[in-house]
Amino acid sequence: MTTSPSPSCSTSLDETLAVLLARFGARAVLNRTVREQHSHGEGVPVSGMPDIVVFPENNEEVAAILALCNANGVPVTPFGAGSSLEGQVAALAGGVSLDMARFDHVLAISPEAMDCRVQAGVTREALNAHLRGSGLFFPVDPGADATIGGMASTRASGTNAVRYGTMRENILGLTVVTPQGDIVRTGSRARKSSAGLDLTHLYVGSEGTLGVITEIQLRLHGVPDQISAAVCQFPDLASAIGTVVASLQSGVRPARIELLDAAQMRACILYSKLDYAQAPALFLEFHGTPAAVAEEIALMRDIADEYGGTAFDFASSPEERSRLWKARHNSYHAVMALGSGRSIMGTDACVPISELADCLLETAADIEETGLVAPIVGHVGDGNFHLGILFDPADADEAARAEGLAFRTARRALAHGGTCSGEHGIGSHKMVHMEAEHGEGVRLMERIKRALDPAGIMNPGKMYPGLAGSGR
Amino acid sequence: MTTSPSPSCSTSLDETLAVLLARFGARAVLNRTVREQHSHGEGVPVSGMPDIVVFPENNEEVAAILALCNANGVPVTPFGAGSSLEGQVAALAGGVSLDMARFDHVLAISPEAMDCRVQAGVTREALNAHLRGSGLFFPVDPGADATIGGMASTRASGTNAVRYGTMRENILGLTVVTPQGDIVRTGSRARKSSAGLDLTHLYVGSEGTLGVITEIQLRLHGVPDQISAAVCQFPDLASAIGTVVASLQSGVRPARIELLDAAQMRACILYSKLDYAQAPALFLEFHGTPAAVAEEIALMRDIADEYGGTAFDFASSPEERSRLWKARHNSYHAVMALGSGRSIMGTDACVPISELADCLLETAADIEETGLVAPIVGHVGDGNFHLGILFDPADADEAARAEGLAFRTARRALAHGGTCSGEHGIGSHKMVHMEAEHGEGVRLMERIKRALDPAGIMNPGKMYPGLAGSGR
Repeated sequence: MTTSPSPSCSTSLDETLAVLLARFGARAVLNRTVREQHSHGEGVPVSGMPDIVVFPENNEEVAAILALCNANGVPVTPFGAGSSLEGQVAALAGGVSLDMARFDHVLAISPEAMDCRVQAGVTREALNAHLRGSGLFFPVDPGADATIGGMASTRASGTNAVRYGTMRENILGLTVVTPQGDIVRTGSRARKSSAGLDLTHLYVGSEGTLGVITEIQLRLHGVPDQISAAVCQFPDLASAIGTVVASLQSGVRPARIELLDAAQMRACILYSKLDYAQAPALFLEFHGTPAAVAEEIALMRDIADEYGGTAFDFASSPEERSRLWKARHNSYHAVMALGSGRSIMGTDACVPISELADCLLETAADIEETGLVAPIVGHVGDGNFHLGILFDPADADEAARAEGLAFRTARRALAHGGTCSGEHGIGSHKMVHMEAEHGEGVRLMERIKRALDPAGIMNPGKMYPGLAGSGR
Repeated sequence: MTTSPSPSCSTSLDETLAVLLARFGARAVLNRTVREQHSHGEGVPVSGMPDIVVFPENNEEVAAILALCNANGVPVTPFGAGSSLEGQVAALAGGVSLDMARFDHVLAISPEAMDCRVQAGVTREALNAHLRGSGLFFPVDPGADATIGGMASTRASGTNAVRYGTMRENILGLTVVTPQGDIVRTGSRARKSSAGLDLTHLYVGSEGTLGVITEIQLRLHGVPDQISAAVCQFPDLASAIGTVVASLQSGVRPARIELLDAAQMRACILYSKLDYAQAPALFLEFHGTPAAVAEEIALMRDIADEYGGTAFDFASSPEERSRLWKARHNSYHAVMALGSGRSIMGTDACVPISELADCLLETAADIEETGLVAPIVGHVGDGNFHLGILFDPADADEAARAEGLAFRTARRALAHGGTCSGEHGIGSHKMVHMEAEHGEGVRLMERIKRALDPAGIMNPGKMYPGLAGSGR
């Protein structure tokens, strides 16, 4: 789906573009290639060309751009690393793509408070490189080297969330710029607060629809004394899931507990040259003091043994550990390589851990029935799993079967008390599930959206099904 | 401060009362004593008499009451256990006090998912009694036997938050009834979600100003294998705080780490017959496997030793442990007893842990200068501490000095990057700090309030300084 800006309000648009070009010079770009790069994210075939790409450098510039666009009714779509998966960065109604790449400063680090303040365009890898040697790290790890601002906007998580929480738990406060051009600081540096409405957590996950996140106050965590990573393989999916559920219920708090089904293992073995069986696997990592890690591993080994798991194959060096997690993070590309030119449609079901086995096994049966190749990989400690459904967009039947499988996977998560989106957000692609998941809550979200962005300039066409027709 | 309902709109009010009396019979109460009981909480001398107290029993009844009041412009103030400390339950503009006492059912418990769903009137002690034998417990513990609905509404926390988080981290979803009478389910049972605006965390901490929380989906935690409680005393406040900060930075994750200054210890020793010195103390509790607890205690002992702490005095039995925490929880009553008839004004500063020593020591010096008795007790693992300022309301000078000390303590927390309210909320008493803490963010909160409660019926006179004159 590609939409073009409607021709209405073109005078306002032209005026806006002229002002932006005059003020931002080389940082306001009309070049088609650059606009094309900013017309889409990854994952779903949703795109929309912005009329201009602007690269602001500070809060005041963002405020000026937003106030101008708000006055002229010109849409604004914030853009981070472009790694979002549900169409979030597509400029569906044209207008301005606000590229936050120049917001790349780490503003403050406090080892004593174990927090830091970063600009929105800092990527998680850049932040962790910056923190090297401080004894601290930032754990949220969605795989892609996303920007912290983008991760805040989509309420991202990833492999470490089972122990360290998601962006929601790791953000103490924000600076946001409202569509009216006000610069607002939310939250504080305190670990907790009950002072008024929680604006911070309203903006976290709002996908650029309420304003622009420009700075983020983050919790940091101490680098653990001991890190141990291991792989354990299972005769079938049910045994792997049983091990996960039983270990979490026994109080094991792994830092990572990732499930890869046989199809995903096959893809990773081929792509990353891994020496494992083409059978379901858990990729595990334990963090803590040596005694605590040893205790958790012993407990988990006993449980895995009961479920017919293989002996734990430990990564013997930091390099081997990196290789293991790189292979895990490359699972998307591994599936892509498997597909010989096909596209991937992702899913993002997340359910209570008690429902994980049923939901996952029903989904595996559904994949089987469709005849599609759809490897499963999941942050199963959170009850979150993804399919990478391979399909040929040019083959209408196959594309429809892929859409059907993705749709049913999302709805199955809802039927099991879960959510259609554990960590990727809604964007435009998952709007179809909003009513089913939230019911009347969607109307409340829309009222909040209208209250904070009455002109509807912020990332139109996303998240709110009742406002889908709005925008310019 | 006591306000009475204004005489305007009395026809609408009379009609509303008549409809409520007809529908709810004995569950709609005009009796002055009952209304008086519902006119105030604890802690601050803020009260406002409701015109009627209604005891609904299900979501539909709450919806009917709210829709009626919304149509007639009659204020509604939700009421839980009445233990809030900042004037939250005072019916400042009269109208309906909505007593949630009959919402006392635990609706579901899932040991597998480690969650439960409760009605808003269930108290935390009732919930934990219900969970006994399940191997699970609900950790959030604000001292008072508050209702879960009230704790959600004020974003409460307490002694366990340093390890288990506050209400914010332990709520997965809610049922809320909007002022218009819509029954809305927010969140899901999944541990994480990025599906749309985070309505759950917008309502958590909204203090009944956006609607009524009627059901709460809660995370539960496994009862730890080992629980060890101990007391350690210090030559001065600075040494006690130094121990807290150093141990947290070393990765110790105590379940409780409570600071009591010498004045508070004196009060507790007298009130609870404790056998300790009148010197600053840390009350500690460690949860985990036996090995992990032993490791944490050893680490913390070494640190306390460096700061001149006494040997750890361990509670040798569960009974002794209960006695210790009962004494801690009775610290408010202990201060009350010390005051021989005086009132207590509380404060609720919360700062980043790196600022705790400076903020606390500056505050101790400020207390000294005022000449007031104001024992300090704190959830210092979160950077949160309270003064219990004793004052005689009839002594205008002393009351003014108490207000001055409380005001400066809140503002000092802001100057240290913290919040005026770690866990008690804003109510009416802390509205004076909202602009200083949130700046332009207050305007965003007010826009959200107006969007969700355009008639302004929900708990008027609280939280939003710009709307303070509104209500009936």
